[in-house]
Amino acid sequence: MLSCPDRVGVVAAVTGLLAQYNGWIIDANQHADSLTNTFFMRVEIKKDSLQENYEKFAQQFSQLALQFTMQWSLTDSSQKQTVIILVSKQGHCLSDLLYRYASNELNFNLHCVISNHTDNRELVDAYHIPYHYLPINENNKQEVFQQIENIFLTAQVDIVVLARFMQIFPQELCQRFAGKIINIHHGFLPSFVGANSYGQAFNRGVKLVGATCHYVTEDLDEGPIIEQDVVRINHKNSVEDLKRMGQDIEKIVLAHGLRYILENRVIIHNNKTIILD
Amino acid sequence: MLSCPDRVGVVAAVTGLLAQYNGWIIDANQHADSLTNTFFMRVEIKKDSLQENYEKFAQQFSQLALQFTMQWSLTDSSQKQTVIILVSKQGHCLSDLLYRYASNELNFNLHCVISNHTDNRELVDAYHIPYHYLPINENNKQEVFQQIENIFLTAQVDIVVLARFMQIFPQELCQRFAGKIINIHHGFLPSFVGANSYGQAFNRGVKLVGATCHYVTEDLDEGPIIEQDVVRINHKNSVEDLKRMGQDIEKIVLAHGLRYILENRVIIHNNKTIILD
Amino acid sequence: MLSCPDRVGVVAAVTGLLAQYNGWIIDANQHADSLTNTFFMRVEIKKDSLQENYEKFAQQFSQLALQFTMQWSLTDSSQKQTVIILVSKQGHCLSDLLYRYASNELNFNLHCVISNHTDNRELVDAYHIPYHYLPINENNKQEVFQQIENIFLTAQVDIVVLARFMQIFPQELCQRFAGKIINIHHGFLPSFVGANSYGQAFNRGVKLVGATCHYVTEDLDEGPIIEQDVVRINHKNSVEDLKRMGQDIEKIVLAHGLRYILENRVIIHNNKTIILD
Amino acid sequence: MLSCPDRVGVVAAVTGLLAQYNGWIIDANQHADSLTNTFFMRVEIKKDSLQENYEKFAQQFSQLALQFTMQWSLTDSSQKQTVIILVSKQGHCLSDLLYRYASNELNFNLHCVISNHTDNRELVDAYHIPYHYLPINENNKQEVFQQIENIFLTAQVDIVVLARFMQIFPQELCQRFAGKIINIHHGFLPSFVGANSYGQAFNRGVKLVGATCHYVTEDLDEGPIIEQDVVRINHKNSVEDLKRMGQDIEKIVLAHGLRYILENRVIIHNNKTIILD
Repeated sequence: MLSCPDRVGVVAAVTGLLAQYNGWIIDANQHADSLTNTFFMRVEIKKDSLQENYEKFAQQFSQLALQFTMQWSLTDSSQKQTVIILVSKQGHCLSDLLYRYASNELNFNLHCVISNHTDNRELVDAYHIPYHYLPINENNKQEVFQQIENIFLTAQVDIVVLARFMQIFPQELCQRFAGKIINIHHGFLPSFVGANSYGQAFNRGVKLVGATCHYVTEDLDEGPIIEQDVVRINHKNSVEDLKRMGQDIEKIVLAHGLRYILENRVIIHNNKTIILD
Repeated sequence: MLSCPDRVGVVAAVTGLLAQYNGWIIDANQHADSLTNTFFMRVEIKKDSLQENYEKFAQQFSQLALQFTMQWSLTDSSQKQTVIILVSKQGHCLSDLLYRYASNELNFNLHCVISNHTDNRELVDAYHIPYHYLPINENNKQEVFQQIENIFLTAQVDIVVLARFMQIFPQELCQRFAGKIINIHHGFLPSFVGANSYGQAFNRGVKLVGATCHYVTEDLDEGPIIEQDVVRINHKNSVEDLKRMGQDIEKIVLAHGLRYILENRVIIHNNKTIILD
Repeated sequence: MLSCPDRVGVVAAVTGLLAQYNGWIIDANQHADSLTNTFFMRVEIKKDSLQENYEKFAQQFSQLALQFTMQWSLTDSSQKQTVIILVSKQGHCLSDLLYRYASNELNFNLHCVISNHTDNRELVDAYHIPYHYLPINENNKQEVFQQIENIFLTAQVDIVVLARFMQIFPQELCQRFAGKIINIHHGFLPSFVGANSYGQAFNRGVKLVGATCHYVTEDLDEGPIIEQDVVRINHKNSVEDLKRMGQDIEKIVLAHGLRYILENRVIIHNNKTIILD
Repeated sequence: MLSCPDRVGVVAAVTGLLAQYNGWIIDANQHADSLTNTFFMRVEIKKDSLQENYEKFAQQFSQLALQFTMQWSLTDSSQKQTVIILVSKQGHCLSDLLYRYASNELNFNLHCVISNHTDNRELVDAYHIPYHYLPINENNKQEVFQQIENIFLTAQVDIVVLARFMQIFPQELCQRFAGKIINIHHGFLPSFVGANSYGQAFNRGVKLVGATCHYVTEDLDEGPIIEQDVVRINHKNSVEDLKRMGQDIEKIVLAHGLRYILENRVIIHNNKTIILD
């Protein structure tokens, strides 16, 4: 995956080098952002087509990258990424991700689940995943988030998933793990930020409620949006109904957002995401 | 259609009276709002089943209504409602409504089309509908809206449809025709109010854009929402694409909203709508 | 819930009797099928508003029912219905239902899970639900389905959910439990019946794949449809992708279908369903 | 746009040649079909970046194409494609396409409208488009379709749009204009083929009805599917409702399908379409 200033010859240079090393392209996708004159590209290569020349190819590619002022990354999709899930009481997203994980629908290494409640412990145990119960109160916040950070560092976590974790992440943690933390928001952003989004939606009388998967930044619910969806509601539905109906799409939106990241399809650019599918 | 404080016996009283007059119920729908303890009901009756007793039934119903403190209306669906459409340059909603009108998909009496531009005149002419061209500038606003009001009054308009009319209606006009003016907003309210909603959606990087049909009140884009829908977009789409893709749902959302009103299904309650389908 | 030949006065009679007993209507919904001249009605009543007169009301209602030739049922929603889930290897629907069950999102008594495989045993154990492992092969089919029927009878099962159970139910079992067995089909019926529906969808090149929740009858995949939904696919998606993407909607469609039944909203009429929402 | 047997170096060769001619890639998309080992590619180039070398580039590209056994086409998007629309009585799709055409939302040269009825003549006249009224009966079918073919040939038509044209095209015409005729079918193919698809959907009790835009082949409703969509219905909806609700998506599905073709995004492969977006 790469991004660079747009100019003639980028694709030719990249694919030319690949062809030279006999690299078999499985999938390729590119996008040119004309407003910022930036070019983005994702190429998926059969690793064994490069054979023993993988190292050499990577080295030569880094020279090419310099020449075109690229930001780039070369990842080995056989190496699973390490994920940590945080959850509070509501476990619908957690339960959904656990099954997708266990059935290999989503392909990652689940290091542990962290929660400030015990509600979902038994479920997590059934999947043989470590469960860290770290209760949070007014006084111990700083300390607990230090513990959480330590867990992240020890695990060398690639992706932190806030699967309905109802505590606000400290700014420094957001910054230190920028681009690595994703959240599922129970509302169609930018409408209805904050904790009571279904109540707000109910009061405004909207006819659809939504869910948003986004990167976590220092600004609450303002990070780059990865995926969204909505569900139709009507005047009969109470706030409780909205919450229940919204949960169906929260699960799916979060799972889709996580999938895009696991497949190395997401580039953050100007507080927006480019999903090279 | 009626609303009243909720209590035991409302449905029995209404349907009992109907049965007494031999009234054949085609469709009935009710809703109890537990928060405000209000009951809403819509009953559709075969008029000829009441035969010559229609007047007498209406009279006795008004007594029942007093007893239950009802707000109510009895409308004859064979009487077409009178509609006036206002439009500026973009005619996609107008064109869509005109065909639905002419093919009797939507059943109303189209009194005229009013526009501050001439772009859609020829199309309107083809449907043999009067076209009032009333150009608006800084200086003549008050005067033109006076003319518009006069047209409304002369027509005894039932429903005013702002089908992408890009001028803000004066407060007094909104108040005088409260509950009679609907608008199609090119955005998923409450996100992205105002004229440049697609630009705002583009900048925020949302993954769906929407359209909202709502009643017009003094507060711009804050009136009761009648219908909404969304369409999926991605990073490749420019603001122009969003505008184009949004137009597809603007047309449908407006047509659906208008249909609900024409079928006497919409009740406004606490700045929200109840659609008794 | 009732159905009867349509005539003047049904609603008045029912709601009149209710009012006489001081019955508070929470929700009511009706439908008149003009093709077969049949009337359907669902009334939800606050039980405590009938107080000690519940028995007497029920008795008098049964007389009313005779008079109007009604088919009817009076159910107490505080009495949970008994459900048995059958599953083969794929546990995505099972896992989803288990969490909805345990979190009280769906309100029922889960008697047990029956499977011809052991794949999902550990997950079911975590929810403390009995798991009957009954392997099926060419020779023991009849015997195993006899065991299954015995479990149904012992449990006095109200609803049997085939949550991706890949064995065809014997005709007699379908007949004996007619209107009590629902299935989730991994395809948009009536397209693509049978086991390999995603392969068929792939080969035909459709742009949406779907899932269908339906009642099980003797005719495979031909029973009354309760709920359906679809998801968009494209030329990049393999059969495996279709299967994965379809599973997201299978889960939701099955959960919605089950919810309608648990809330006593579904009437079967002429191999179709009426969902009185 | 090109397709060829998949092998290492196709992208490199194509983009290398482009870079050599200083060709600026606006958009590029590829797909590898692993089942048939075929590679598909669409590259959109700023024409003026090739400057006066356009002819020379095209020539050299044809040599490259030979080398890689490509099927390919090089089209100039500033050259509008010529379209002919056929319609019977129902004009909702026609009306929709006419407005999209006139407002330049869809970019094509509309040669004429052909109809076996006069219903939509006045509307077409308003857009100043020739209207050929060719009534069809049992006896003159062959003759009329000969006239239609003559119009196609005279116009050098690129795309024929059957916008609810209720006559079956003769086999020879389908073959002679293979890959050039598209139809909007009022049903979710492969369910419900033929004229009465809404009646079939009503009888089967489906919960969604759909529309399908597809290429016309000799086999009725069996051609490659370009675009599909669905809309939710319920037990209250009559066949007439289904027809009306389906028309909303027919319009959009046809317009989207036509857009893909006008933008040269569609490749037919094995009775399926690849839409390189």
